[in-house]
Amino acid sequence: MRPSNRTPEQNREIKITRNFTAYAEGSVLIEVGNTKVLCNASVSGSVPRFLKGKGKGWVTAEYSMLPRATHSRNMREAAKGKQSGRTLEIQRLIARSLRAAVDLEAFGENMITVDCDVIQADGGTRTASITGACIALADALNWMVAEGKIKKNPLKQMIAAVSVGIYKGTPVCDLDYDEDSNAETDMNVVMTENGGMIEIQGTAEEGAFSHEELLAMLSLAKGGIEKLVIEQKKALNAE
Amino acid sequence: MRPSNRTPEQNREIKITRNFTAYAEGSVLIEVGNTKVLCNASVSGSVPRFLKGKGKGWVTAEYSMLPRATHSRNMREAAKGKQSGRTLEIQRLIARSLRAAVDLEAFGENMITVDCDVIQADGGTRTASITGACIALADALNWMVAEGKIKKNPLKQMIAAVSVGIYKGTPVCDLDYDEDSNAETDMNVVMTENGGMIEIQGTAEEGAFSHEELLAMLSLAKGGIEKLVIEQKKALNAE
Amino acid sequence: MRPSNRTPEQNREIKITRNFTAYAEGSVLIEVGNTKVLCNASVSGSVPRFLKGKGKGWVTAEYSMLPRATHSRNMREAAKGKQSGRTLEIQRLIARSLRAAVDLEAFGENMITVDCDVIQADGGTRTASITGACIALADALNWMVAEGKIKKNPLKQMIAAVSVGIYKGTPVCDLDYDEDSNAETDMNVVMTENGGMIEIQGTAEEGAFSHEELLAMLSLAKGGIEKLVIEQKKALNAE
Amino acid sequence: MRPSNRTPEQNREIKITRNFTAYAEGSVLIEVGNTKVLCNASVSGSVPRFLKGKGKGWVTAEYSMLPRATHSRNMREAAKGKQSGRTLEIQRLIARSLRAAVDLEAFGENMITVDCDVIQADGGTRTASITGACIALADALNWMVAEGKIKKNPLKQMIAAVSVGIYKGTPVCDLDYDEDSNAETDMNVVMTENGGMIEIQGTAEEGAFSHEELLAMLSLAKGGIEKLVIEQKKALNAE
Amino acid sequence: MRPSNRTPEQNREIKITRNFTAYAEGSVLIEVGNTKVLCNASVSGSVPRFLKGKGKGWVTAEYSMLPRATHSRNMREAAKGKQSGRTLEIQRLIARSLRAAVDLEAFGENMITVDCDVIQADGGTRTASITGACIALADALNWMVAEGKIKKNPLKQMIAAVSVGIYKGTPVCDLDYDEDSNAETDMNVVMTENGGMIEIQGTAEEGAFSHEELLAMLSLAKGGIEKLVIEQKKALNAE
Amino acid sequence: MRPSNRTPEQNREIKITRNFTAYAEGSVLIEVGNTKVLCNASVSGSVPRFLKGKGKGWVTAEYSMLPRATHSRNMREAAKGKQSGRTLEIQRLIARSLRAAVDLEAFGENMITVDCDVIQADGGTRTASITGACIALADALNWMVAEGKIKKNPLKQMIAAVSVGIYKGTPVCDLDYDEDSNAETDMNVVMTENGGMIEIQGTAEEGAFSHEELLAMLSLAKGGIEKLVIEQKKALNAE
Repeated sequence: MRPSNRTPEQNREIKITRNFTAYAEGSVLIEVGNTKVLCNASVSGSVPRFLKGKGKGWVTAEYSMLPRATHSRNMREAAKGKQSGRTLEIQRLIARSLRAAVDLEAFGENMITVDCDVIQADGGTRTASITGACIALADALNWMVAEGKIKKNPLKQMIAAVSVGIYKGTPVCDLDYDEDSNAETDMNVVMTENGGMIEIQGTAEEGAFSHEELLAMLSLAKGGIEKLVIEQKKALNAE
Repeated sequence: MRPSNRTPEQNREIKITRNFTAYAEGSVLIEVGNTKVLCNASVSGSVPRFLKGKGKGWVTAEYSMLPRATHSRNMREAAKGKQSGRTLEIQRLIARSLRAAVDLEAFGENMITVDCDVIQADGGTRTASITGACIALADALNWMVAEGKIKKNPLKQMIAAVSVGIYKGTPVCDLDYDEDSNAETDMNVVMTENGGMIEIQGTAEEGAFSHEELLAMLSLAKGGIEKLVIEQKKALNAE
Repeated sequence: MRPSNRTPEQNREIKITRNFTAYAEGSVLIEVGNTKVLCNASVSGSVPRFLKGKGKGWVTAEYSMLPRATHSRNMREAAKGKQSGRTLEIQRLIARSLRAAVDLEAFGENMITVDCDVIQADGGTRTASITGACIALADALNWMVAEGKIKKNPLKQMIAAVSVGIYKGTPVCDLDYDEDSNAETDMNVVMTENGGMIEIQGTAEEGAFSHEELLAMLSLAKGGIEKLVIEQKKALNAE
Repeated sequence: MRPSNRTPEQNREIKITRNFTAYAEGSVLIEVGNTKVLCNASVSGSVPRFLKGKGKGWVTAEYSMLPRATHSRNMREAAKGKQSGRTLEIQRLIARSLRAAVDLEAFGENMITVDCDVIQADGGTRTASITGACIALADALNWMVAEGKIKKNPLKQMIAAVSVGIYKGTPVCDLDYDEDSNAETDMNVVMTENGGMIEIQGTAEEGAFSHEELLAMLSLAKGGIEKLVIEQKKALNAE
Repeated sequence: MRPSNRTPEQNREIKITRNFTAYAEGSVLIEVGNTKVLCNASVSGSVPRFLKGKGKGWVTAEYSMLPRATHSRNMREAAKGKQSGRTLEIQRLIARSLRAAVDLEAFGENMITVDCDVIQADGGTRTASITGACIALADALNWMVAEGKIKKNPLKQMIAAVSVGIYKGTPVCDLDYDEDSNAETDMNVVMTENGGMIEIQGTAEEGAFSHEELLAMLSLAKGGIEKLVIEQKKALNAE
Repeated sequence: MRPSNRTPEQNREIKITRNFTAYAEGSVLIEVGNTKVLCNASVSGSVPRFLKGKGKGWVTAEYSMLPRATHSRNMREAAKGKQSGRTLEIQRLIARSLRAAVDLEAFGENMITVDCDVIQADGGTRTASITGACIALADALNWMVAEGKIKKNPLKQMIAAVSVGIYKGTPVCDLDYDEDSNAETDMNVVMTENGGMIEIQGTAEEGAFSHEELLAMLSLAKGGIEKLVIEQKKALNAE
């Protein structure tokens, strides 16, 4: 029995609010159960130095947790003067995933930065960030088309992400903090709307996991992501 | 005529949402017009080193703007590896102001940290932070009493803050970004609910300001803060 | 009774030494009682990036205390690897104040940096820095005219600063460390030679301060600054 | 055809030199083709603060590339003043993997730090680091037993790691730099000597990868790791 | 002919002002020609961690140049966020030299930090720092005896330093900036009052230097330091 | 009697391995007794900013110790976020010494960076670095000639370095860690192949050293360096 009384394959409730803030070209508040992440996409007309003059665009991401997003307060990274390894690892994952959604060659020398700021954390903040960031990215790309900055929308497909794991011996989908902190294995999966895999990152927290467990988790992830993509599209089609 | 069509003494509309996040002992989203600040108060059972063993409490604050709180994206301070002078100056102001609201001697060796994170910025973020943070602080102190961590609530009084300035030659109250970026003089005022002054910080942006202008601004600030205190109390009494 | 036996409106003795060091375009040692600050103005032919190509000049300032300027040794900021919030706040104040003395539009793309290094600290280091830095700035501007780097001296007026406060219930002018560390309220005031206000920063250290107290402090500040401007001009006219 | 003329399932040649340096409790130079990593395990009698007094041990790791381990020189991280996100991500992976090899509860309040310094890089430096570090760890644990610092060796099993990927449409094992920089998909796999999975991290570099490709890569990884474990044991049994 | 018209063995004029600032236990302004360094010695009752509980004292030093001590302004190290290699190298040299003057075993668990802040730089700032710092150190040690913090003065001997070099083929003593920036060889020498050598650091700036040149420079250094020690003692005996 | 049973003038055994790594333009592993340093020279077609457009080349160096090069583990400088004063001092010494070996005017706007990474430390790491780095530099310069990047080899002469000291009252050459940590005086000497002096850095660790001791140490250094140059040339002529 899961602490939240969900069935093993059941996602948490998801709520997507577009245009959550007024200034960003794409601004999405995504709520996955009690996890809440604000994803702001900012368009810039210049690319990083290593891409200058190559006629190619770039998508990057930054991730942060507000100090009191969690049960106890974490020291602010700006005050510490450096970002933790965890933060850097997560924002690299988000950025790589988002780049898989876009045809960078067909994007011109533009850059989109998606800031994922966790307002409240109850497990799965990195996967919620990816799912929400992709909507903010889509909005920002639509804005660029509407503004005439690019002719054709370079979005190839939606991507979404979910965490799966083995909790008390059972493979489960979309772990909340209670489950996550007690799971034997934890895996984050990023997929395209067509079920193609973009990233899988599985970690044994206690003992190793078997090939069969891996397959069971992948199958749950596939199902979970399909539902997330439906929500993403519903939100994008609403006006 | 003000860009927002307000009269010189008219505050922007204010909206206060308590318990905006789930984990902080006090959590307030304050919206002053389009300026939105999340103020989370965290209680800790230990004080900074310079107060250890003195039987006295402490209140401190941190301030940050989300990178895309503004019209164009600002680089994240955690990524830059240091907080700007502006950030440090503002959080020192917030913290000093909050300490004026509390009897630190009657507080035991406890500390409250109030994180003010600006979600959206349209002028007056530091004064909105102070006004919102004082409510979060009051909630956190009430929580401490309810939890039996302190016997008596050490809150001496509410404090609130507003910015006033000279805009196109006219003293005005509660400047938004449009006014603020064109004001000849800008002054932030923090007062107690009884009209006592806690902080005034006035800056001539263009030319000097006169004694009469100062008096006019102070008078506007007094009126503006009185209205803010009414809203603070209304919010705290709701439930 | 003030610890120094001064009357409430009495400034400390002031001593101004121009050309204290040999290389800076303006170099002033200002001594206000036991507070001693070396103010060196350096001229540069290039402006910060945000001003490039705008045909406008810039004035900035840096502030530091020698580690043993005070009764006990403070850790050196260069060794800690960052400047404190207090330092950044003070140097922002000095720089803003100095810019109010100069017509930046009539200055060409030049920059003057005034370094205020506190040799000995007995209260009022930021106001002494401003008063001294304005003289060093005037000397550097004169040097630029003499060198033919600018045609007309863009100095609009002298500015000077003093701290005032409420000490044991009485408003007093130009607090030394003994008074400052026990004052109920502390206010720094920067004015032009004509009595126009450039900056006021008042802080209640204990309880709030009243409108009447504010007026009394402002009146003292006005008197104190008038005397400082006389000393500035006397020093500048000496040769 | 692979650039190295290897068959898809063929590992590069591996060479393991124990006691490569004189002072570390475990010191292993691992060479996987042209990739060379020096893995030094250091034993310490104290654990990180979060484990103090819990009677439990800890294993951690640090990773670095010498500036000229690669074709062109990279700036030294110590000179830049911070470790890159890539470095932090890799050393977190190595450390997590090594902890899966050890029974931390049966280890006392001791810590082992394994430094993985890449002398020469030709792809697969993180997996070579894990494979080599586990041998250095085993040596350090044996040293602790021999010195009487612990009674029983807490090593549960050997772990080893390999990278697999899709290169020109074909799943291949143990990619070198030529393959790695052109692979469509890249996956790092860490397994126990019994085939249990510890970590999998797969990334689509171009397009998504399919479930079938994932299975093919996992199968190659399993075979590759089995061979690595044989080499690890051969090295450990040699004297 | 030297630019300053001095003879090869002639030191610059030296001026020593004790008690230059009011708070430090030893405070010396040393002027060597146009080079001016303020040396403040601060006494502390605690030693660095590596000496705790060993019953031994410590002497350390810090060195800094005010930004405009030189012909053109240098960026402030506190603003850059790190001390340069040159600064660290010099302060290590000063500290090592001062420790040679004191019997650390007979000093109790006390520490003296000597801050050497260069007010004006015209060559030889590190040697002037050492010569001045030793006087400040002596004053601080005398203060400790007078205060009863130590019974016996642990000063073993005075030390002093001078720079020598080969300028236009001729060995010269006490180089000023004009000479220093054109010297073929530059050597800093620290000696005890008895002519014992504490440090020599010689560098060929252009071509190598010969054994004979080294001997000639050492001889000049010996003579120059003897004169400096006389000045040190004269200053210490004055009252 | 020396701990290693060497005679006072006897160097440790030296082993030089060229082309130790595959990618650097010059790559030398130098072993001096148990001290092992990897010296990689990297050629770059651009010079530091202060030399841009002057038609002159540059040689620089970086130095680092692997965390477990020594008997106990040192914290990694990249993890600490800054290089120690010792590291900066040593790499400045190496770089200055190498520049004395090359005619920078005849080198074009090219830069060579030599990375000296200490694999194992048993005393004399800075002098071993210099001796090894000069060989790597020679190889890199030969590579530049062979590649047609420069017409004529700008190497003026080989340089080499050794440490000498007073150990238990006796002057000795090429101190190992056992001697170094107990020496009364320690001196590093860098010379050209013709016996010209490039750098001498002597430090009294305990008491002062006399003129006679200095001469004895210099004589030992000369003999030791002559032997090192023979080994350098033998290594460079091999192949």
